[in-house]
Amino acid sequence: MSSNPDDAPAPPPATAGEGAVSRQEFDALFSAVRTWGRWADADRGAWNRVTPEQVRRAAALVRSGTLVPMARPWDTAPGPDNNKPALHYMSDLGDVEPPEPATHKDFIAVDYHGKAVSHLDALSHIAYRGQLYEGRAAQECIDAGGARFGAVSALGPLVTRGVLLDLPTVFGVPWLEPGRAVHAADLVAAEQALGVTIGEGDAVLLRSGSLRRRQERGAWNTGAASAGLHVDAMPLLAERGIALLGGDGDSDVRPSPVDGLHSPVHALAVAAMGVPLLDNLDLEALSAASASTGRYEFLLLVAPLNIPGATGSPVSPVAVL
Amino acid sequence: MSSNPDDAPAPPPATAGEGAVSRQEFDALFSAVRTWGRWADADRGAWNRVTPEQVRRAAALVRSGTLVPMARPWDTAPGPDNNKPALHYMSDLGDVEPPEPATHKDFIAVDYHGKAVSHLDALSHIAYRGQLYEGRAAQECIDAGGARFGAVSALGPLVTRGVLLDLPTVFGVPWLEPGRAVHAADLVAAEQALGVTIGEGDAVLLRSGSLRRRQERGAWNTGAASAGLHVDAMPLLAERGIALLGGDGDSDVRPSPVDGLHSPVHALAVAAMGVPLLDNLDLEALSAASASTGRYEFLLLVAPLNIPGATGSPVSPVAVL
Amino acid sequence: MSSNPDDAPAPPPATAGEGAVSRQEFDALFSAVRTWGRWADADRGAWNRVTPEQVRRAAALVRSGTLVPMARPWDTAPGPDNNKPALHYMSDLGDVEPPEPATHKDFIAVDYHGKAVSHLDALSHIAYRGQLYEGRAAQECIDAGGARFGAVSALGPLVTRGVLLDLPTVFGVPWLEPGRAVHAADLVAAEQALGVTIGEGDAVLLRSGSLRRRQERGAWNTGAASAGLHVDAMPLLAERGIALLGGDGDSDVRPSPVDGLHSPVHALAVAAMGVPLLDNLDLEALSAASASTGRYEFLLLVAPLNIPGATGSPVSPVAVL
Amino acid sequence: MSSNPDDAPAPPPATAGEGAVSRQEFDALFSAVRTWGRWADADRGAWNRVTPEQVRRAAALVRSGTLVPMARPWDTAPGPDNNKPALHYMSDLGDVEPPEPATHKDFIAVDYHGKAVSHLDALSHIAYRGQLYEGRAAQECIDAGGARFGAVSALGPLVTRGVLLDLPTVFGVPWLEPGRAVHAADLVAAEQALGVTIGEGDAVLLRSGSLRRRQERGAWNTGAASAGLHVDAMPLLAERGIALLGGDGDSDVRPSPVDGLHSPVHALAVAAMGVPLLDNLDLEALSAASASTGRYEFLLLVAPLNIPGATGSPVSPVAVL
Repeated sequence: MSSNPDDAPAPPPATAGEGAVSRQEFDALFSAVRTWGRWADADRGAWNRVTPEQVRRAAALVRSGTLVPMARPWDTAPGPDNNKPALHYMSDLGDVEPPEPATHKDFIAVDYHGKAVSHLDALSHIAYRGQLYEGRAAQECIDAGGARFGAVSALGPLVTRGVLLDLPTVFGVPWLEPGRAVHAADLVAAEQALGVTIGEGDAVLLRSGSLRRRQERGAWNTGAASAGLHVDAMPLLAERGIALLGGDGDSDVRPSPVDGLHSPVHALAVAAMGVPLLDNLDLEALSAASASTGRYEFLLLVAPLNIPGATGSPVSPVAVL
Repeated sequence: MSSNPDDAPAPPPATAGEGAVSRQEFDALFSAVRTWGRWADADRGAWNRVTPEQVRRAAALVRSGTLVPMARPWDTAPGPDNNKPALHYMSDLGDVEPPEPATHKDFIAVDYHGKAVSHLDALSHIAYRGQLYEGRAAQECIDAGGARFGAVSALGPLVTRGVLLDLPTVFGVPWLEPGRAVHAADLVAAEQALGVTIGEGDAVLLRSGSLRRRQERGAWNTGAASAGLHVDAMPLLAERGIALLGGDGDSDVRPSPVDGLHSPVHALAVAAMGVPLLDNLDLEALSAASASTGRYEFLLLVAPLNIPGATGSPVSPVAVL
Repeated sequence: MSSNPDDAPAPPPATAGEGAVSRQEFDALFSAVRTWGRWADADRGAWNRVTPEQVRRAAALVRSGTLVPMARPWDTAPGPDNNKPALHYMSDLGDVEPPEPATHKDFIAVDYHGKAVSHLDALSHIAYRGQLYEGRAAQECIDAGGARFGAVSALGPLVTRGVLLDLPTVFGVPWLEPGRAVHAADLVAAEQALGVTIGEGDAVLLRSGSLRRRQERGAWNTGAASAGLHVDAMPLLAERGIALLGGDGDSDVRPSPVDGLHSPVHALAVAAMGVPLLDNLDLEALSAASASTGRYEFLLLVAPLNIPGATGSPVSPVAVL
Repeated sequence: MSSNPDDAPAPPPATAGEGAVSRQEFDALFSAVRTWGRWADADRGAWNRVTPEQVRRAAALVRSGTLVPMARPWDTAPGPDNNKPALHYMSDLGDVEPPEPATHKDFIAVDYHGKAVSHLDALSHIAYRGQLYEGRAAQECIDAGGARFGAVSALGPLVTRGVLLDLPTVFGVPWLEPGRAVHAADLVAAEQALGVTIGEGDAVLLRSGSLRRRQERGAWNTGAASAGLHVDAMPLLAERGIALLGGDGDSDVRPSPVDGLHSPVHALAVAAMGVPLLDNLDLEALSAASASTGRYEFLLLVAPLNIPGATGSPVSPVAVL
């Protein structure tokens, strides 16, 4: 990686129109990356790749001992990219339960899937053609009582090697423009520029710079336009055997390049590959820290709430540098 | 530590009546363990003790790479020890947002302080004589909009050495009976029996076995009777410079031995020492794992949700063995 | 009606065992009382009986102008008869939004069906053998987005004649014991004793005295044992053409006398007859007021919240005497 | 009233700048309309004016028996006039509790004060210069546990004469433009045009036509600009002895004409006069019905939820014509 913008690979042009994928092509992709039937503990999907050996290797990556949190603040205000604001109310200001000591308490609530809260998608979050990961019928596994397959409570915590693909740094731009599709070639370029190679059991975090753009330009409807992965990048990630995919968006480029599918990367990652997703991270501090050390790998911790039957969880992922 | 119950120190008798502490004695204790004015970043209290060096040492503790989660399941059913049940509702069963892919979503809510959900108490949770940690006036720092001092969002994540004081194992009993006070001498006995010494920046986790008792005997009102620390144990923990205190209860023995105070250990730890608390952990798996390896120290990760102004957070702490 | 207990009809014996109804008998009953296909505006079921003429007659019942509310207080504490406590948090204590003036605000939440909150059951609340009222398939009408048939928002408000069947007064007892089944003969006895005849478009409110019992004896699990209607009383109510059925319980006697059905009166009233139910009323004040005037009829108002797709609503019904 | 637009009084010009009121003038107004100390049952404020005699007179107004509901639909989507969207989730789709019968249930939640949900403001909602109605100190009466004075549970239900002041009809316009202040002279003109005179114990409902404007022009930020009462109209309403004030806005014209006060009509009505407010009604159907009969008075029913300590309640007011 170079800090000289002149050395940066040229940012590719926007993909409007170009890169369109038919439903038939998508279905072929889906079959190609599918890992159904591979693990006894199917609920955990690709997290089965994270063996104790992988955890030990991740721990061995710790150098400075600096912690870098990645969770965005709980957002209670609606906006163009937050149509389901989180709730936070004080339930005791020291005046409800008797002192001493005085206790201050609060109530929190959130419909966490969406565009604003940092969260993990468990395997029950997504079904394609009626099937969850492992080919389980969504209708038989999920009802108003929650998910009986692919719940976040089946995942448990994750400690593994995290890899930051800091694309604006790679391309020498402040951010990828909304709608910019990230292709396999971009991932390979990022690996080379940043000096890191994605491997088995890794958590891959894609930085598009959307949060920096939001800070400078204001919020926009990210459901309509956001930078993210094109489906043609998924075979590479499948081949490498990643355990987790995340980013400062929700991984999918929007508008979707696939005919009739609003979130094709979700379908491939979660339903075909068994790879949970980390959405809406704040990767700004990690980008700065990585730039200063020149290292784009680190120990990554993800500890979802233990909610039986939930399709995911708000989380506060942490990088240990 | 010995696996032979005959070698175990005799379990001390119950403390009913015995060990009573006057308010005056408590106030002297409070002054003695107080660390106000010590850190520029006062919101983080004793977490300031966890330096990058401490993080590196914790990472070096990893041996097998086994992860042991400690969060109890999100409990939506009321009971004698759960008077504020958590909420979990499905907000989309693939029939609200249009496919493809189908998306399953859920809404979660909880007033998390209490007896049932595993959670972290931030420094704004407790005030004694009107003062939060650092002597900050509670009324000036906390209102219906949240806490402006001592919020969980100021804490961020924690990675440090965790130490399990597995008292039932030490004493050769299945659990400590509700009401059993844990004194300084018990902590010292545990250190010796388990071969571990509490030090600067450590997270101390106390296992009373209450969860095992709950499984075998059924739930009871833990607010009325629970095993936990007597205030006389706090000077030892203050002297050792701990960063975090937690357990399978809420750290306080109940009934309280201190005249007029319902939660004296909360007051000492949070308001005097700046030590956040971890309440209601499930330490059963960690107990079994530690017994099998004979090691009672490990890398501990705590990653609270990033909720501005919140007095704590539900958490899923993880031990990496 | 007489205030002399000696004149009261003898309270019938408990029905344990006696009165058992087979599933086949129930299905015959269901067919017999069914009113499917009767109204163009099927969502409103038996509320179609409440014509403007019926409203005018109800208004003409007003004598003293006294209002008698019937809603129990919003119950935020769990208990043997409240396993889904309501929530109430202050969201502004004059310290969130800027003054002047200072504004105080609150957040309320409830999963209102259950045993504790006074609420209305709309026609989408109950399906029998997969069918809602009018024979609509539940699976086609209700999903995670709400009910498209039989929602409370389709009902709107109700003003009609209310009739109080004050059974403890009729039988000269402080309350009906939990498990006491109310049969058709009891309804007829009540009409005669109280001097009122149930007619077309009426709202029938059954008082069992359960709230008085709760106040004197403490709360109990009303899901296991409560006084209420035996299914054999429903043909009489069907014949009379009632519009609404309610009470201080949830109308069903428990344990259920019908083999394999937990709430047979719900099935008959809501799914067969299109009669919404009013559950968990406080009828104590209405009982006292009616006793003092000797009149057991009044103008009744029910104004559910206008929640599109909801299966009912918390309500505060009011009698105008 | 005339249906001929040519007969309509000329719509007054907008009030930008004009009509500004100093804080000193406002305080004099506040003192002039104040009714503190008048009623033993101070929590109920001006609802004390609604005697049983007033209820009987209201019942006598019923002519056709037509019910006209006024509650807007529960709005779960954020928007320029809804920054605190209501929540509605299905908690049972017949798949959580066991059949038969199948039960469908839902969870509702809302922070109901604001611009979108039809609701009642109880007397605890507003304090001016630290004082609630009756001069009660807000800080002593309201804490995180709720309001101990002026709670909605102290109000109970209301049945009284309602009077619709349908201003667009009076002025022959489709709606009052946002920012249009309604003055005392406008109220008098409306009385004359509509053939109704506001009297003791009445509920006055002001229609600005904002909902029609919203339907035709789209939503806007009503907190920034809305038609409503100028404070100079309040002495007239005080003199007439009204019990309740409401409308399709929140009664206050915005921007506020009073220096430093965001909601001066709230302060006068609630804190000085003890008059609860009804916000965000849908008066379109009532307008049409009143126009067709030429009668602008009716029986009005308001039945707030019985929530102890709440500062108001979502409601579904109903007119009986």
